[in-house]
Amino acid sequence: MLRLYYATGTCALATHIALEEAGADYEAVRVDFASQAQRGPEYLAINPKGRVPALVTDSGTLTETPGLLLYVAQRFPQAELAPLSDPFALAQLQEFNSYLCATVHVAHAHGRRGARWADDAAAIEAMRRKVPATMTECFELIERKYLKGPWVAGEQFTICDPYLFTIASWLEGDQVDTGKLPRVMEHRKRMLARPAVQKALAAEGTQIH
Amino acid sequence: MLRLYYATGTCALATHIALEEAGADYEAVRVDFASQAQRGPEYLAINPKGRVPALVTDSGTLTETPGLLLYVAQRFPQAELAPLSDPFALAQLQEFNSYLCATVHVAHAHGRRGARWADDAAAIEAMRRKVPATMTECFELIERKYLKGPWVAGEQFTICDPYLFTIASWLEGDQVDTGKLPRVMEHRKRMLARPAVQKALAAEGTQIH
Repeated sequence: MLRLYYATGTCALATHIALEEAGADYEAVRVDFASQAQRGPEYLAINPKGRVPALVTDSGTLTETPGLLLYVAQRFPQAELAPLSDPFALAQLQEFNSYLCATVHVAHAHGRRGARWADDAAAIEAMRRKVPATMTECFELIERKYLKGPWVAGEQFTICDPYLFTIASWLEGDQVDTGKLPRVMEHRKRMLARPAVQKALAAEGTQIH
Repeated sequence: MLRLYYATGTCALATHIALEEAGADYEAVRVDFASQAQRGPEYLAINPKGRVPALVTDSGTLTETPGLLLYVAQRFPQAELAPLSDPFALAQLQEFNSYLCATVHVAHAHGRRGARWADDAAAIEAMRRKVPATMTECFELIERKYLKGPWVAGEQFTICDPYLFTIASWLEGDQVDTGKLPRVMEHRKRMLARPAVQKALAAEGTQIH
């Protein structure tokens, strides 16, 4: 059985949803960020990076959302969460998910985790101030170019959709004007209508509107 | 034929090497960062993000190194650059490459591209100061945990190796003490001995020692 370590409000939700969509037999284990459990020895033995998500499998532990999402798609092929045998189409999925992890998530993280990249309080505050602008720029590109509709990759629901949905759920907190992102917001609605999404949100105790 | 857009000293080198390793029929096109060609209309039509690498294929254009590397592995399976049919092993490759793009490359970028995340000159300088510490932390984890040896994934050379080699070539510039990273530096030597690596470096006019 798979075991997903997650914390509420984090990108672990993307893998959580993908596991539900795949009909996987898994257990979701909450890591309590409030008590800094992700920095405790017990969790560091699972993921030495001290972050979520981590997925414990029979073969070992995996981390990093784009890796986990590909794993879920390939491990549960009957769920058809990725065009596994089409090199170009599959690379497009990894391109989108790489953009989310390396550019969009990173832009967001400068609002709350600036201490990762500078020690100075004024610098951390300067990073926080720029988050609405950088997140807006990222999502304008997604709105205009990457989100084909109705799903990210077009007609087929894929591993890109839970990941976009998860990161887009941070937009209001990042003070991005979602009125300028109608296609992203329609995607959110479409996601919220899916039973697997509802189940993962309920399990995490997370509300997204 | 494939067309790779690259600039010297960038992460595009990883895909350049992978194409050589795969024996691909491709053309490498230099984007002149000195004249800001990556921000010009001609290049933005290829990659609206204004970054390299971009790979033009018969099916369309791909960006983001982890996506490109997976594409090369899957498009040229005879080169055996990834364990394509093993979900866990393939996810491990994507885990490592995601870590490189979302954490390690991002840590490095704070030394030169701080303006992405703050507008204030003092903040940008504060980010620059922290780069040796963050890059050291990343590479200590790679040295200790991720680089199995002799190659990243163990006995098999994979798409993780050109990517690690590329990012590790920035260590000296980031003032990281490479004396504490013997396994990473041995990996560099092993890479430099490969004809495909030598060919890609020569084509880019890049020297790595």
